[in-house]
Amino acid sequence: MLQKIKPKKFKLGIVGGGPGSWIGHVHRISSRYDDKYEIVAGVFSRSVDKSRKFGQSIGLDKSRCYSNYKEMSEKEAKRKDGINVVAIMTPPSSHQIIAENFIKKNIHVISDKPFAGNLEQGKKLYKAIKNNKKIKYALTHNYSSYPMVREAKNLVEKGKIGKVEYINVEYIQDWTDGNKISKTNSKKVFKWKVDKKIVGVSAVLNEIGSHAYHLAIYITGLKGEKLIADVSKYSKDVKMDNNAQVFVNFNNGAKGIVWTCVTAKGGVYGLRIRVYGSKGSLEWVQNDPNYLKFNPSKGAVKFLERGYTKANFSKKFSRVKFGHPEGYLDAFANIYKEFAEYLKTNTKKRFYFPNEEEGLETAKFIDACKKSSLKKQWVKI
Amino acid sequence: MLQKIKPKKFKLGIVGGGPGSWIGHVHRISSRYDDKYEIVAGVFSRSVDKSRKFGQSIGLDKSRCYSNYKEMSEKEAKRKDGINVVAIMTPPSSHQIIAENFIKKNIHVISDKPFAGNLEQGKKLYKAIKNNKKIKYALTHNYSSYPMVREAKNLVEKGKIGKVEYINVEYIQDWTDGNKISKTNSKKVFKWKVDKKIVGVSAVLNEIGSHAYHLAIYITGLKGEKLIADVSKYSKDVKMDNNAQVFVNFNNGAKGIVWTCVTAKGGVYGLRIRVYGSKGSLEWVQNDPNYLKFNPSKGAVKFLERGYTKANFSKKFSRVKFGHPEGYLDAFANIYKEFAEYLKTNTKKRFYFPNEEEGLETAKFIDACKKSSLKKQWVKI
Amino acid sequence: MLQKIKPKKFKLGIVGGGPGSWIGHVHRISSRYDDKYEIVAGVFSRSVDKSRKFGQSIGLDKSRCYSNYKEMSEKEAKRKDGINVVAIMTPPSSHQIIAENFIKKNIHVISDKPFAGNLEQGKKLYKAIKNNKKIKYALTHNYSSYPMVREAKNLVEKGKIGKVEYINVEYIQDWTDGNKISKTNSKKVFKWKVDKKIVGVSAVLNEIGSHAYHLAIYITGLKGEKLIADVSKYSKDVKMDNNAQVFVNFNNGAKGIVWTCVTAKGGVYGLRIRVYGSKGSLEWVQNDPNYLKFNPSKGAVKFLERGYTKANFSKKFSRVKFGHPEGYLDAFANIYKEFAEYLKTNTKKRFYFPNEEEGLETAKFIDACKKSSLKKQWVKI
Amino acid sequence: MLQKIKPKKFKLGIVGGGPGSWIGHVHRISSRYDDKYEIVAGVFSRSVDKSRKFGQSIGLDKSRCYSNYKEMSEKEAKRKDGINVVAIMTPPSSHQIIAENFIKKNIHVISDKPFAGNLEQGKKLYKAIKNNKKIKYALTHNYSSYPMVREAKNLVEKGKIGKVEYINVEYIQDWTDGNKISKTNSKKVFKWKVDKKIVGVSAVLNEIGSHAYHLAIYITGLKGEKLIADVSKYSKDVKMDNNAQVFVNFNNGAKGIVWTCVTAKGGVYGLRIRVYGSKGSLEWVQNDPNYLKFNPSKGAVKFLERGYTKANFSKKFSRVKFGHPEGYLDAFANIYKEFAEYLKTNTKKRFYFPNEEEGLETAKFIDACKKSSLKKQWVKI
Repeated sequence: MLQKIKPKKFKLGIVGGGPGSWIGHVHRISSRYDDKYEIVAGVFSRSVDKSRKFGQSIGLDKSRCYSNYKEMSEKEAKRKDGINVVAIMTPPSSHQIIAENFIKKNIHVISDKPFAGNLEQGKKLYKAIKNNKKIKYALTHNYSSYPMVREAKNLVEKGKIGKVEYINVEYIQDWTDGNKISKTNSKKVFKWKVDKKIVGVSAVLNEIGSHAYHLAIYITGLKGEKLIADVSKYSKDVKMDNNAQVFVNFNNGAKGIVWTCVTAKGGVYGLRIRVYGSKGSLEWVQNDPNYLKFNPSKGAVKFLERGYTKANFSKKFSRVKFGHPEGYLDAFANIYKEFAEYLKTNTKKRFYFPNEEEGLETAKFIDACKKSSLKKQWVKI
Repeated sequence: MLQKIKPKKFKLGIVGGGPGSWIGHVHRISSRYDDKYEIVAGVFSRSVDKSRKFGQSIGLDKSRCYSNYKEMSEKEAKRKDGINVVAIMTPPSSHQIIAENFIKKNIHVISDKPFAGNLEQGKKLYKAIKNNKKIKYALTHNYSSYPMVREAKNLVEKGKIGKVEYINVEYIQDWTDGNKISKTNSKKVFKWKVDKKIVGVSAVLNEIGSHAYHLAIYITGLKGEKLIADVSKYSKDVKMDNNAQVFVNFNNGAKGIVWTCVTAKGGVYGLRIRVYGSKGSLEWVQNDPNYLKFNPSKGAVKFLERGYTKANFSKKFSRVKFGHPEGYLDAFANIYKEFAEYLKTNTKKRFYFPNEEEGLETAKFIDACKKSSLKKQWVKI
Repeated sequence: MLQKIKPKKFKLGIVGGGPGSWIGHVHRISSRYDDKYEIVAGVFSRSVDKSRKFGQSIGLDKSRCYSNYKEMSEKEAKRKDGINVVAIMTPPSSHQIIAENFIKKNIHVISDKPFAGNLEQGKKLYKAIKNNKKIKYALTHNYSSYPMVREAKNLVEKGKIGKVEYINVEYIQDWTDGNKISKTNSKKVFKWKVDKKIVGVSAVLNEIGSHAYHLAIYITGLKGEKLIADVSKYSKDVKMDNNAQVFVNFNNGAKGIVWTCVTAKGGVYGLRIRVYGSKGSLEWVQNDPNYLKFNPSKGAVKFLERGYTKANFSKKFSRVKFGHPEGYLDAFANIYKEFAEYLKTNTKKRFYFPNEEEGLETAKFIDACKKSSLKKQWVKI
Repeated sequence: MLQKIKPKKFKLGIVGGGPGSWIGHVHRISSRYDDKYEIVAGVFSRSVDKSRKFGQSIGLDKSRCYSNYKEMSEKEAKRKDGINVVAIMTPPSSHQIIAENFIKKNIHVISDKPFAGNLEQGKKLYKAIKNNKKIKYALTHNYSSYPMVREAKNLVEKGKIGKVEYINVEYIQDWTDGNKISKTNSKKVFKWKVDKKIVGVSAVLNEIGSHAYHLAIYITGLKGEKLIADVSKYSKDVKMDNNAQVFVNFNNGAKGIVWTCVTAKGGVYGLRIRVYGSKGSLEWVQNDPNYLKFNPSKGAVKFLERGYTKANFSKKFSRVKFGHPEGYLDAFANIYKEFAEYLKTNTKKRFYFPNEEEGLETAKFIDACKKSSLKKQWVKI
C-alpha cells in the first residue's frame, strides 16, 4: 500500500563520469536534486575492479558495476529491477554507439552533449531515436535550462521582441593557462580534449560551440540556413581547432554571429547571447544568470529577475525565490527533473529540456562550419 | 561487507517544513545534495493524518511521521535505527524548546535561524548545547556558507585588509506588496511573521536582521560591544517592527552600521556587506554571490571569482568550476555537508558552518537593539 | 548693432582657486562650458605678484588681479565694466565673510560648498542673501546637477515612488593613503583639510557630508527634523573628525541613514543614494551617473538612461545624446549655465541649481550632528 | 607686453555644424574646453544670411560668416588675423575636397570622421596632407581619446597582455525607432544618413563602423590584412546598408570580429571592444568609460579606474580626479587640446590624437568590406 504513495523513483544507470570526472559529479547531483532517480548501475572504468570500487563508493551494489556498456545494457535489460534510464557522459565520439545500444533495449537516454562526434553519427543516432517509439531522449545542453533562458524563449514566442533580426552568441574560455585551469600545463590540459578520435570532428565546436549555437536556436526557434566559418588553431603545436567564428543566416532572414574559443586568455567561461528583434532586444549572460535584460524599442531597459513579477514564466523552472540566486546545478538538474516528468506522460510532445531535434541541428551546424572553413566560402547547413 | 564500503548516511528527522513551506523544501534539497543524509522521520503537522500524508509523499514510512516533536524524540531515541540528527525549521519562538528536547536524547541538531525567539531562550539553549558533550549543533545562517563569504573571512583572518575599521551591512526586503511577493495582499503576507508569540522579540531582526549581523561577525571575527538602534514599524496597522537601523561599536574599536528592513519597496532581497580595514576593503552582495570585490589600498580593484586563481580558499566550498555560477542552494547545502563531516570527527573544534556561539551573539544583538530603541540611547550588547 | 546680437556674457570674478587648486580648475572650465561667462578679475593669492602671475596666465588683465577680496569688491564695483558675478572657491570658514562683501556691492555670488564654516556663519550669510533683493546666489553642491539626479527629483515630485519612507545616502572616500591620493603621505594630505580655523566646524561633514545630506533633501524635497550622530576620528594623531554616521528622521516621517567617511580604505569617492517610497524605489550612484535605477513596486526593475525615452526630464540638463556618457564637469557646468539663465530672468523663483535654502539646511544638519555626537543623544535639527 | 604673457589661442574657423547640428555643438564646446582656441570664422549655411545669423549668435563678426568654404579659405588666408585651424564637420563625402582646400592655404585641419567618403577620396586626401609639410591634421575618432582607451593602448604597447590574438569590437545603434531617437519616424531619421552622395560608400561603416575599426587598430597598433564581410540592409525600403559583420585577419596573425549595426533595436549606442592577448585580455565599453577591465592570465580580474593607482597613464588625459566620472565631451575635447599642443611643437611625430594614417587605414577597411560583401569572399584590405 505504502509503496503506491511512495514517489516512484526511476532507476538510473550511468556510463562514464568515473573518478576524477567533473561532469560525472554534476550528473549525479542533478539526478539526486529532486529525488526522482535512484542510481543503481554504472560503467565507471574499463577495469571491472576500478568500476566496482568507484560504484560502491557512491552506493551501488557490486554486481551492478560493469566494465563496458554492452554488458550493462544486456544484463540490466534482463533484470526485473533493471534500469529505466541511462545517463551517458563519455567523450563525444562514443555518444552515438552507446546510446543506440541502450535504445535497442528500450532504455531511455539522457546524453551529455554534443549529440554525436560528427554529423554521420548524429544522423544515425537521430534515426535510432525516432525509430523506437518506446524510448525518450534528452540532451544536456544545460544552459538552456536556466529559468531566464526559458523566460527569453517565452518572450520571443510571445512576440515581445517582434521578428528576430540579429543574433549574437559567444562562448569563450581559456584552456591554455595552467595557472588558471589547473596545476598542469597547457599540454596536459589539452590532452584528450584535442584527440580527434575521442572528441570527434571539432574540439572547440563539439565542446562548447555546440552549446552556443544550441542556445541561439533554442531561444529563437530558428534554424541556420547558410554559414561561413573560420575555424582555426591556437598554435602549430596543437592538434585540433580551438577557435571558431561563424556568420549564420537563419531561416527567417535573421543574421547571426557565433564566436567560440577555448584559448581566449582572460576570457573565462563567457557564455553570452543577445537577440535583437523588430521590437526590442534580449540579453542573457551565464555569469549573471538570474537576470534577463529586456530592452523594448519603446520604453526603458528592464532587468527581469528570475521568479519576479513580469518574469512569471521563469517561476516554473525555479526552486528558490527571487532575490536568492540560482546557479549551474539548479539549471542542470532541471533537465533531470523534466525528463522524469516527461517519462510519466504518454506523449512525445515537446518538453522544455533540449532534445534530439536540436541535437541534430547542432551536429549539422558543426559539420557545415568545418566544411566552410576548409573551402573559405559560404555553405548550406 | 558491502555495508562497510557503502557511504554512511546519517538518519535525519525533520520538525517543521510541512506542505507549503518554502524553507522545508530548501532543507530537504540541501540534505540530499551530497548524499550524506537519509530523511527517515518527521513532524510535518499537528494533525497526525496530515503529517503522515506529507511524510509519505516524500518517502517516509507512515510509522515515523509524527504529530509532535516530543513523541518523535522519544520514539526515535528508542529505535535502533532511530535518527542521528534532527533538523528544526519551525518558527523562531519554538527553536529552543524543540532543540533542547532532542539534545536531551543525544540527537544532534541542525536548526533554522534565528538561534531563539529571544535572548532568554537563547541563553538556555546555549547552555543546553554546551552541557551535552555528546551532541553537536549547527545554525543555518546560510549566507555565511557562500564560498566567497568564506573567502572574505579568510582574507580578513590573513590580514589582507589590515585591522577592521568600518562595517556596513544591510539586508532589506519588501514583504508588503502582494504583487511582488505573492498573490495575497500585504495583510495576509504579514500574518504569522508579525505575531510576537510565534516570531519572538522582533519581526525584522529575528527574520533577516539576524542574518545581517551574523554575516558581519562571521566574516570579521569581531563582536559588537555597544549599539544604538532605531527599531520601528511600517505603519500603525502593523503589529510588529519592520525596520531596524543600528550603529554598532565592535570590540576592536571598529564602527558599524546595520540596516535591515522588510518594507523597503523595490528593495528586493538585498543582502550586502562591506568591510573596510586599514589596508583595504571587501564587498560581497548575495545577488552576485560568485564574486568578491577586493579593493586594496595599494593597487587596482580586484574582482575575485569563486574557484579562480587568487580565490583558492573558496574552492574548498565549491561544487562547480569557476565560470559557472553557484547559488543559494549550493551555499545552504554546504552546512549540511560540513555538519556531516563534523559529526564524523571526534572534535568540537570549529568548522566553517555557523554555530551556537554566533547564535548567542546574534540573540544578544537583537535584545540590545530592542532595549536601545526603547530607551533611545546607546546600550551595551 | 552687432553688440545686440552678440550673446551677452556675464563678467565673472574669482576668489580662490589659484595655482595647484583642483576646484579652481573645475570652476573655470565650468564657466567656459556654455560660453556664458568671461573671467575678467580675480584673487588668486595673498601675494599680489603671485595673483597677477596666475591671473595673467589664464588671460586676465594685470590690473584686475587682486591680492584680497575687499580690494577686488571695491574696485570692481566702481568700474563700468566691473564684474557681475563672483565665484568663491576658498576654504569653508571664509565663505560667509567673502560672499557678504560682494553681496553688499550688489554682485551676484556663486559659492563653493559648504554654505559656511559653521551654523552661525550660515545664518548670517542666509540673512545677507535674503536682505539684498538685487542679488542672486548659487551653491555648487554639484552632484545635484547630474541629469539623472534631476530625473530622480522629478520622479519623486510626480509621485512615482509614492510617499518617501526610507533614505540611505553615503559619501565615502579615502584620504589617508598617499599611494592612491597622491605621492604625499597621509599627514600632508590631511594638512589644511583638518584645520578647524580653515574648514570650520567639521572636516568630514563640511567637506563631503554636506554633499550627501544635500542630495537627500534636494531629491526628496524633505527636511530633517531630528537626528542622532556618531562623529568620530580616524586615529588619535588626527585633529579633526573623519567619519560620521547619522540617523535622520525627516519631516514627513521618513527614516534616513547618512554615512560619510574620508578614511574608508578602498572606499573611493563613493557617492550613492537610495530613496524608498510607498510605491517603489530609486537608486543613483555617481560612478555610473548616466543611469537611474527605478524599481516600482509593481513590475520589473528599470534602468533609466539619461536622455532616453522615459527619462525625458533629464534631457533638459543634458548636452550629449543618450548612449554617450556625461560626467562630473557636465554636471558642474550646469550650475553655471542655469545661474546665467536665472540672472536673465526677473524672478527669484526656484531654478534647479542648489541655493541658499538648501545651504542653510545643510549647515543646520552639520551643527546638529556635532551636538548630537557630543551628547550621544537624539537632537533637533 | 601683456600680450606675451596672455596665452596664445589659435584662431579657429568652422565649416559645417550649423543650426540644429549636434556634432557642431560638440566641436564648439570641445574647442572652448581648455581655452586654447577662439572661434573667429565659419560657414554655417549655403545661405549667407543664415550663416551670418548663426555665426553672430555664437559671437562671430558678421564679416567672417561665409556661405561657402572656398570663399572662407581665400579670405581668411589673406587676413593678418586669419584662421590658423579649420574644423570640418560636414557630411563624409565632402571631407576630402574641403580639407584639401584649406591645406592648400596652409591652414591646419581638424576633420570629423570618417576620413573621406570613399577610398579614392581618402587616398587623395592622404597625399594632400603628406605633401604639405606646413600643415597638421587631426581626425575626430573621438572614442580613442577616452583616458582608459589610452590606458589600454599603453598596456598593449608595454606587453601586458602579450601578443594580441583575438579582437572583438562592436558598435551598434538603433536609428529606426522614432520613439527612441526622435519624434520623427524612421523614414525621416534615415533621410540624409542613407543618401550615398552625401555619406559616401557605406552608411553604417562610414557613420559608426569606422569608429569601431579605428578603435581596434588604435589600441593594438595592428592593421587588417584580409577580411570577409557581410554588409546588408535592414529592409527593402531602405536605400543604403545598415548592418555589417566582418571577420578581419590582422598583420600579426590575430583574428578579429567587427560588428556594426544601426538597426539593432534596443542596441543603444553600444561601443565595446575586447582584446585578447597571449598573457591576458582587456575590455572597454563606452557606456562605462572610466573603467578598463584587465584580466591577466595569472591572477584576479582587475578593474582599472581612470586616474587611479595602476592606471597612471590615463592621468595624462584626465581633467577630473578618479572617483568622479568623465564623459564624451571630456574625451572629444582631448583631441582639440592635444592638437593645440601639437601645433606648438616643431614635430610631426605622432601624438595621441587620431590622424591621417589611421584615417587611410579605415577607408581601406570600409572599401574592402564593400568589395568582400559583393563577392561573398575573403579579400585583401
